[in-house]
Amino acid sequence: MMKRTYIGERCTVARALEVVGERWTLLIVRDGLLGVTRFEEFHDALGIPRNVLTARLNLLVEHDVLDRVPYQARPVRYEYLLTAKGRGLAPVVRALLEWGDEHYSDDLPEPPTKVVHAGCGGRVLSRTVCENCHRPLASSDITAVRVTGG
Amino acid sequence: MMKRTYIGERCTVARALEVVGERWTLLIVRDGLLGVTRFEEFHDALGIPRNVLTARLNLLVEHDVLDRVPYQARPVRYEYLLTAKGRGLAPVVRALLEWGDEHYSDDLPEPPTKVVHAGCGGRVLSRTVCENCHRPLASSDITAVRVTGG
Repeated sequence: MMKRTYIGERCTVARALEVVGERWTLLIVRDGLLGVTRFEEFHDALGIPRNVLTARLNLLVEHDVLDRVPYQARPVRYEYLLTAKGRGLAPVVRALLEWGDEHYSDDLPEPPTKVVHAGCGGRVLSRTVCENCHRPLASSDITAVRVTGG
Repeated sequence: MMKRTYIGERCTVARALEVVGERWTLLIVRDGLLGVTRFEEFHDALGIPRNVLTARLNLLVEHDVLDRVPYQARPVRYEYLLTAKGRGLAPVVRALLEWGDEHYSDDLPEPPTKVVHAGCGGRVLSRTVCENCHRPLASSDITAVRVTGG
């Protein structure tokens, strides 16, 4: 059985969720990946209360997921650009999109967002392979091992 | 620019986050993937307040992420088993783990959880490939397209 201290202190899923484990936060990241950068654009796109949006943007800047960059001098105005760390959340958003498409698109003629290869427009497929034996892996082939000596 | 109605009503990322877009919820799913099934085990592992845990487990049962199954008759006691839909969240948790390992494990001798191929113990690698041209894709090769006619 996992111990509370283990989970709270060392699990990097839990640490990651301290930053992004809240609905609005990942939607802000999703919009950032779609090219949204300005406060008013996030506000219009998400319909999020302004004070909540301010708090979430500040949190994401503090955790180096977004960079706050001036785009206008007088009066000074800022936009929010994903950092490399923030762009690193793309696989999380993509995995959520795939799960959402599978389970929450029955009422839609087709899933509303396609993730494609920018070069040729082909659909992007997620694959898992074994580093050791190079086999393609299904979910049932995959297990998690806790490193207790670490 | 995305419209609010678009985001709120049709985006399947947003719909998915209605179910799992909260810190505890994905940690419950993570623990389910690690084999945790009983209320007291989730409670001990997560250190989550009992009323919050009850609410989250009920939400996940309601949304068919968990099955509530009796394991004892007198008194009746239940355990919570991931459904196929729930197990489908494994790639989301794995993507979060990879991001967490990259950015939140500096103080650890090594990341505390390894995701491995059950068959040979090899590390599991996530790969994205193009369905059309079969190339392996980096993040910078991938873009999202909104299907407006859908």
